[in-house]
Amino acid sequence: MPLSYAIIGTGALGGFYGGLLARSGLEVHFLLHSDFEHVVKHGLRVDSKLGDFHLPSVHAYRSVGDMPQVDCVIVGLKSTQNHLLASLIPPLFRDDSTALVLQNGLHVEQATRDVVGPGRVAGGCCFLCSNKVGPGHIRHIDYGKIVFGPYRGLNDDEPGPSDERLQTIQRDLSGAGIECHLTNDLTTARWRKLMWNIPFNGLSVILDASTDVIMGDADSRNLARRVSEEVRQTACQCGSAIEPEFVDWVIDHTDEMVPYDSSMRLDFNHGRPIEVEAIYGNAMRHADRHHVETPILKTMYQQLKFLAAHR
Amino acid sequence: MPLSYAIIGTGALGGFYGGLLARSGLEVHFLLHSDFEHVVKHGLRVDSKLGDFHLPSVHAYRSVGDMPQVDCVIVGLKSTQNHLLASLIPPLFRDDSTALVLQNGLHVEQATRDVVGPGRVAGGCCFLCSNKVGPGHIRHIDYGKIVFGPYRGLNDDEPGPSDERLQTIQRDLSGAGIECHLTNDLTTARWRKLMWNIPFNGLSVILDASTDVIMGDADSRNLARRVSEEVRQTACQCGSAIEPEFVDWVIDHTDEMVPYDSSMRLDFNHGRPIEVEAIYGNAMRHADRHHVETPILKTMYQQLKFLAAHR
Repeated sequence: MPLSYAIIGTGALGGFYGGLLARSGLEVHFLLHSDFEHVVKHGLRVDSKLGDFHLPSVHAYRSVGDMPQVDCVIVGLKSTQNHLLASLIPPLFRDDSTALVLQNGLHVEQATRDVVGPGRVAGGCCFLCSNKVGPGHIRHIDYGKIVFGPYRGLNDDEPGPSDERLQTIQRDLSGAGIECHLTNDLTTARWRKLMWNIPFNGLSVILDASTDVIMGDADSRNLARRVSEEVRQTACQCGSAIEPEFVDWVIDHTDEMVPYDSSMRLDFNHGRPIEVEAIYGNAMRHADRHHVETPILKTMYQQLKFLAAHR
Repeated sequence: MPLSYAIIGTGALGGFYGGLLARSGLEVHFLLHSDFEHVVKHGLRVDSKLGDFHLPSVHAYRSVGDMPQVDCVIVGLKSTQNHLLASLIPPLFRDDSTALVLQNGLHVEQATRDVVGPGRVAGGCCFLCSNKVGPGHIRHIDYGKIVFGPYRGLNDDEPGPSDERLQTIQRDLSGAGIECHLTNDLTTARWRKLMWNIPFNGLSVILDASTDVIMGDADSRNLARRVSEEVRQTACQCGSAIEPEFVDWVIDHTDEMVPYDSSMRLDFNHGRPIEVEAIYGNAMRHADRHHVETPILKTMYQQLKFLAAHR
């Protein structure tokens, strides 16, 4: 049996994945904010390199109070909005519901876990280039893979959702055309993604430069590699073994990306909050709990906090 | 017998110290560039909290070819101009001449040493707030102490100038009203100064903030302290013992400073070259020679190199 879904945060990410799930015939309920009236009238439009599509009529809501309870709540908000989860999730949750948190960072699932309790949260790393270009209008630029798995708490000692539930979610996502992989080691998957996010999100704001400019300068290119290597060593010392060659992969892969503004730089330049706690603060505190020094990570964290407070 | 002096670089620093030496009755020859004609006509003016003074007639030159040889050449250029020293110093030097290098950084004397050979170079750390506010017009804002000593080369194994020569220079400076101290450990004196310069010069450019704003934000204030502590630990591991409490002194002392733009921020904002090699690069390379890791210093070096290349 496929599951029913609610999408909290119908933006570049939630609109894209939720749109694909709805297109595949599943029951999907979208929580919208400023785009609500437009989507009620005109539906949801996704321009994608996988093929453009338009859903003329979707289940759209302005408030969670109007939404039905579902099997799976997909959290697609920016983590800077996590203070809203305590009011957004409970109305949608039954005893056997699951939350799938598709946010950037480490332990970014903890805010959801604190709302719904242990055993009910999965987390996923999304490798997605996607923008919202207008009301109810998503442009998918590249990639789209999700690597997801059970979230086991800050100390990795809690149960996750059942294997059966996770496998059903995987079947639903795959059936919707989303490349997705189930992992039993979400923490290591998160660290691998952070090996890109931590150097490139932060340096793009601190140096006010897009990734291609960072990669084209010998000093910033070497700095990005050193940051990625510090993240790798931190992960290893915290129990997530990642091979040294993965740093090369991150750097080579970035060379191949189209000139790209990181989501943090877009947020910063548009005056929106940046995800410095989810990406930097949580990684730093995780390392602190494991008594691991992170001199460069902490430097970037403090620089970003200053810049966010004084822009 | 007092010495005769030449000032290379009659700016905020060279104009101030050279002006005081000339006022005290010593023979001082000033090399000038854009201010030459103004100083020939109107002399040199110094507004100082020690008392304003005006020297209506000074020995001013546009070219070293017109200058006499002297006992002591004071190098007051920015270190970013050190490529000029090979042509500027030799015409002023006799076999028994001495160079006193009053520049920021570590091993910043090496460029002068390469021109004049070993045994003839002293270096001094200046604790000076001074600006050039117009042609031939210096405004001395605060401080002014010089701590100087023999420069002994990159590996600390070369002779310095004779004690007698250094003591004569000290007498001349003191007689001119300049607080000055002679040290036999220039390297440690340089590291102490770097415990301020490395955090505050660099962060003021990277964060685009004056020192009072850096000190007023909890994150950047703690970052400045962490940088200063990394510099201290690096100095210790390279053989310059500096007590942990000196970090507190640096931070407390900065709290007491008038709101102040670092010289590096002034240079950066006016589109001039910044002294990133003398202050950051040389410290980093000194640490490398001693096999000491400097993760934050290197991060700031690479950030500053990028920003200087892309402003």
